[in-house]
Amino acid sequence: MSGGADSGGAVERSGVGRDEAEVEFSRIVAFSAGVFAIAITLLVLALQIPDNVDDIGQTLRDQGDDLLAYAISFAVIGKFWISHHRFYGVLARFDNTLMGLNLFYLAWIALVPFSSELLGNYSDAADSAIVYATNMAGASLTFTVQAIYANRRGLMRSDAPEEQRRLAGPATFLIGTVFLLSIPLALIDTTIAQLSWIAVMFVGRDVAGRAAHFVR
Amino acid sequence: MSGGADSGGAVERSGVGRDEAEVEFSRIVAFSAGVFAIAITLLVLALQIPDNVDDIGQTLRDQGDDLLAYAISFAVIGKFWISHHRFYGVLARFDNTLMGLNLFYLAWIALVPFSSELLGNYSDAADSAIVYATNMAGASLTFTVQAIYANRRGLMRSDAPEEQRRLAGPATFLIGTVFLLSIPLALIDTTIAQLSWIAVMFVGRDVAGRAAHFVR
Amino acid sequence: MSGGADSGGAVERSGVGRDEAEVEFSRIVAFSAGVFAIAITLLVLALQIPDNVDDIGQTLRDQGDDLLAYAISFAVIGKFWISHHRFYGVLARFDNTLMGLNLFYLAWIALVPFSSELLGNYSDAADSAIVYATNMAGASLTFTVQAIYANRRGLMRSDAPEEQRRLAGPATFLIGTVFLLSIPLALIDTTIAQLSWIAVMFVGRDVAGRAAHFVR
Amino acid sequence: MSGGADSGGAVERSGVGRDEAEVEFSRIVAFSAGVFAIAITLLVLALQIPDNVDDIGQTLRDQGDDLLAYAISFAVIGKFWISHHRFYGVLARFDNTLMGLNLFYLAWIALVPFSSELLGNYSDAADSAIVYATNMAGASLTFTVQAIYANRRGLMRSDAPEEQRRLAGPATFLIGTVFLLSIPLALIDTTIAQLSWIAVMFVGRDVAGRAAHFVR
Repeated sequence: MSGGADSGGAVERSGVGRDEAEVEFSRIVAFSAGVFAIAITLLVLALQIPDNVDDIGQTLRDQGDDLLAYAISFAVIGKFWISHHRFYGVLARFDNTLMGLNLFYLAWIALVPFSSELLGNYSDAADSAIVYATNMAGASLTFTVQAIYANRRGLMRSDAPEEQRRLAGPATFLIGTVFLLSIPLALIDTTIAQLSWIAVMFVGRDVAGRAAHFVR
Repeated sequence: MSGGADSGGAVERSGVGRDEAEVEFSRIVAFSAGVFAIAITLLVLALQIPDNVDDIGQTLRDQGDDLLAYAISFAVIGKFWISHHRFYGVLARFDNTLMGLNLFYLAWIALVPFSSELLGNYSDAADSAIVYATNMAGASLTFTVQAIYANRRGLMRSDAPEEQRRLAGPATFLIGTVFLLSIPLALIDTTIAQLSWIAVMFVGRDVAGRAAHFVR
Repeated sequence: MSGGADSGGAVERSGVGRDEAEVEFSRIVAFSAGVFAIAITLLVLALQIPDNVDDIGQTLRDQGDDLLAYAISFAVIGKFWISHHRFYGVLARFDNTLMGLNLFYLAWIALVPFSSELLGNYSDAADSAIVYATNMAGASLTFTVQAIYANRRGLMRSDAPEEQRRLAGPATFLIGTVFLLSIPLALIDTTIAQLSWIAVMFVGRDVAGRAAHFVR
Repeated sequence: MSGGADSGGAVERSGVGRDEAEVEFSRIVAFSAGVFAIAITLLVLALQIPDNVDDIGQTLRDQGDDLLAYAISFAVIGKFWISHHRFYGVLARFDNTLMGLNLFYLAWIALVPFSSELLGNYSDAADSAIVYATNMAGASLTFTVQAIYANRRGLMRSDAPEEQRRLAGPATFLIGTVFLLSIPLALIDTTIAQLSWIAVMFVGRDVAGRAAHFVR
């Protein structure tokens, strides 16, 4: 992705300054926000009910798992979006590699409606829990790679708060790790795997806060 | 949602000023507008007709309920969007809790294409009327909570018109209450429930206007 | 729609100036552009082929009508979007009624993916041609009403070119009229109706140009 | 498309300056970005699995082709988007013809979710490879025509880097040509055709770089 056929000849733009390229910068952010907004709204398609069901009341009552998957996925994409737009808020510059990483990250985000529908329809199957966990772990870890890359290349603003600079990595990394570890867990018991996801969503922040203190 | 793992360590941004964070502010509004625009355009998917129907003329004539549900839902989402973007127009600052409440609100909005399709396909079933009313009541009341929270925390602009500040609450609260009350109504007669929705859309404004005078 | 429950009490904003409310103005335009972009991209869903077809080559060759409907509808929505964003380009102010009319107009635009799919799947049926023509006539005439209203209320910029001010009405009105007249035509012969649509797309401009001279 | 019924009477705007029409310009870019964002996110619909499959594990394992098509198409649309927004970044002005060409180009982009789903479901069929290659060749060549037109009409900024000005054409032209040549290839062997696509994505850039030197 980073070595795109359209990106020019011998000369590579090795980091376009935010002031010079503010417009281009805001377009990348707007495009990313668009993908987030569409993916989060497409989650609803997983709830569709055919129009010739006999007992609609019963069918609706059976949709508990679909609705739970909708709620979890909406929260997760929402959380990812907040992290993403905060990360881009402290970014001073970007380069071709970061754009490529961002597209790769968005490919995981755009995949969530599929994984979420799968989880809702086959909530007891280990396979669907594994697909869901892989999707979320993939998104988290790609985001961490993006943050590490931006930090090392000095692409972040110098006035970015220390917590923000450090935590773009660790907190998301923690979520990614838990989702990754939940893959073998799902093979034993899918409910335990799902509880680990909910736990990291609520507990993750304090752990990440302490981890940040520890690192400092 | 408000206690996100990515939001940082010990220091919490307790309210980012609009001037300093104008860009971040406008991104939240743009993201919300995106969800509204996608949800309102996805309503059309409820009208889809399979491509091997025998009597297409008859099938189209039978779509009256679907079309009515499309029209009502388009008007309702449109009305919610106008309220939402007016509310954000008088907002001076936001904090993490408001962002969380806003995402929770958007989860109700993104659900409307599902409830609307259900209402169109099963217009006589009490269950579908209940789902629709619950969706709308949920959206209205979450919006009211957002407005009350913003008002109490002093997040609104000081030059916001008095009507705007007060009515972001009461008017939407009235709509929410009527949708809530229509849930038991739907168990008796779905048509009466639906008429109460249309009534509050047209009458609601004057009632809310008087209520505002009364409160003052 | 214009008398919305959320729009306030006794005091109605009777026309918000563009300078004061530039941000709010651009949000309405962005929301409208979002609906256009989503509707135009959803057209592709009409082309979907199930994943267990026996002779995929034959199925693809039979999709000529679907592809033609996709092309026509993409061109029509594109044309409507250009007209819409030019119209908003010469608008100085807006009020609640114009916002309501705009939402009503967008409801027609968001309906096009449905009408287009219907036209592609049932290209020989008079019913589908009638639905398509009604959709387009509805959009055109609602747009004309919007333009007439804005012109009469003096909501347009004083430096708007004369052609732009006058033609926002007549040209779209001509398209709307032809689509309207094609409804009875479709009862006789659907091909003639469809040819009248293509004719007005290419010829319409010169006729409108002459009509504008005539009116002047 | 360029001779739209709404574009005015005798007087045609023969090139609106970027400074005067900055707002209109950014709206066209935003609309285009919206179509890209929606098309790239709709790719996920090709992965949908019905909710009553017997062996979900096996069904998921059989989705390798669908996932590969998703990955390739996400990369291709992403690459096209980057090229498009760079091209518009060096554009100084636009006219009606360029807007028409851009809409025609977007019609190819919006078609990708269809071609991609087809490729995933019928990966062994020559027909689906031909449809996919035609779609990509169509997009590339329409983009090249857009770039050539803009260059000839002097619509690009004078401070645009030489590489950018020249390469908007050749590199995309190369991709387009390879996709075009892969159409007869697909009739012989679909795997070879697909390998040629992946090859041009990775190799294309160096070849284009050398071609640019050669031309200079």
